[in-house]
Amino acid sequence: MNHRTVFFVSDQTGVTAETLGHSLLTQFDGLKFRGVTVPFINTPDKANECVRRIKLTAEVEGARPIVFATMVQDNLRDIIAESQGLVLDFFGAFIGPMERELGIASSHATGKAHGVADQRSYTRRIDAMNYALEHDDGSTTRDYSKADIILVGVSRSGKTPTCLYMALRYGVYAANYPLTEEEFEGGKLPAPLERYRDRLFGLTIAPRRLQQIRQERRPESNYASARQVSFELRSAEALFSRYGIGHFDTTDSSVEEIASTVLDRTGLLNRLQGVEGSEV
Amino acid sequence: MNHRTVFFVSDQTGVTAETLGHSLLTQFDGLKFRGVTVPFINTPDKANECVRRIKLTAEVEGARPIVFATMVQDNLRDIIAESQGLVLDFFGAFIGPMERELGIASSHATGKAHGVADQRSYTRRIDAMNYALEHDDGSTTRDYSKADIILVGVSRSGKTPTCLYMALRYGVYAANYPLTEEEFEGGKLPAPLERYRDRLFGLTIAPRRLQQIRQERRPESNYASARQVSFELRSAEALFSRYGIGHFDTTDSSVEEIASTVLDRTGLLNRLQGVEGSEV
Repeated sequence: MNHRTVFFVSDQTGVTAETLGHSLLTQFDGLKFRGVTVPFINTPDKANECVRRIKLTAEVEGARPIVFATMVQDNLRDIIAESQGLVLDFFGAFIGPMERELGIASSHATGKAHGVADQRSYTRRIDAMNYALEHDDGSTTRDYSKADIILVGVSRSGKTPTCLYMALRYGVYAANYPLTEEEFEGGKLPAPLERYRDRLFGLTIAPRRLQQIRQERRPESNYASARQVSFELRSAEALFSRYGIGHFDTTDSSVEEIASTVLDRTGLLNRLQGVEGSEV
Repeated sequence: MNHRTVFFVSDQTGVTAETLGHSLLTQFDGLKFRGVTVPFINTPDKANECVRRIKLTAEVEGARPIVFATMVQDNLRDIIAESQGLVLDFFGAFIGPMERELGIASSHATGKAHGVADQRSYTRRIDAMNYALEHDDGSTTRDYSKADIILVGVSRSGKTPTCLYMALRYGVYAANYPLTEEEFEGGKLPAPLERYRDRLFGLTIAPRRLQQIRQERRPESNYASARQVSFELRSAEALFSRYGIGHFDTTDSSVEEIASTVLDRTGLLNRLQGVEGSEV
């Protein structure tokens, strides 16, 4: 047996089950897992079909699958709980203590995890995404006064995905400005950034990794050469120190981690939440 | 007491704790919560500082906060567990059963939830994001042969955020093509889409909601008029039926839900996972 199969079963999109499951699975280093997401299990028929799938997997593989379940309705949870897998039921584990603490029964209603209630935040996130798209790669610097943050760094250091992710997930207005060879000549901050020094945050990356990324885009170019990459990175880091710009090395981090780190280090996370935290 | 305060405490970004907490909190309809994310709690000092914050909140508000914790290290978990909050300890609840099932001890190592192990999938996600950006809003149709999916719909029906989200989260190559007035005249599918009919998926939206969104962008324009909006939506839906294009109404859904629904309905989720599921 090489891979243990893992099911992420949900009456919704499965995103919560996947997020929780992945966090737990990464704690088991040597093992390999194969993930199967089964979303929108919202009727007994679908739940029974899912149970059959788990059973079949158990028989074929000779080991019971691990099942991460986030089902709100008791009857559906009960069906999944009777499957042959090791069922780890997220709602089952925590809803009880929360009901006792809050002194009311939970609604057991599907479809609340996202949706209309988030309309205001939805609009903000879409507006933030449009802002990030318009202000990507220094294409315009006109509306920098509206920026929550402006990421700076050399080409392919991770600016664009980080900005888009901060926008789509947190509704943050994030612009980014590329540091190119011309910018480095005087050793000065590019003029459009001068007024917004307090909103700048730098991204760096290990030279070897950057070379690899650029090599994939433009093989054998000067752009991807060890010399050019190292020159740009050294110049960018010199600029960050000279102007006291906070920065982060993105080499070993996912987009999610880079975004959270940027929000944490700049204090934006606290500002977004306000002194008292944000409504959830 | 109007709002109960909720802490999301993590030795990492806090994304897992937030995801879990939000899912559970939405089950308590009438109540209001105020969320405070406390990421990167990776030393005893930081954990103790967090405990002080929880205590202060309990005293000021006269009710103990709910604490969703995702800490991997036992010593840090123990510190948080002793706080005055109702601590819902995600790793504590599930790591034990998983260790017994898998027959090995977990690594208790922080920083595994994302990172270098994901490098291959990271690269794919960044490539997919670049693809989505290049193929946004019909700007080019040249590389449609590489698309996993092509979303079609009227302006502001949710195509761009859905494509970017599918790219950044799932590494899906997603293009999108806007249906505009000119396209509707012959009642025919736009020529560049003809060859790729099997990759099309339509987004629709309620007329009132679309009008509201367009009104915010271009107040009092023909673009935002009830008449125009209703004409475009009717024409798009007629096109979807005529060509048998699957479609989904985005009105009451978050970006996450739209993306999951599209992947589920088109069978892309299964294809991405392969017959046997995907490595996790």
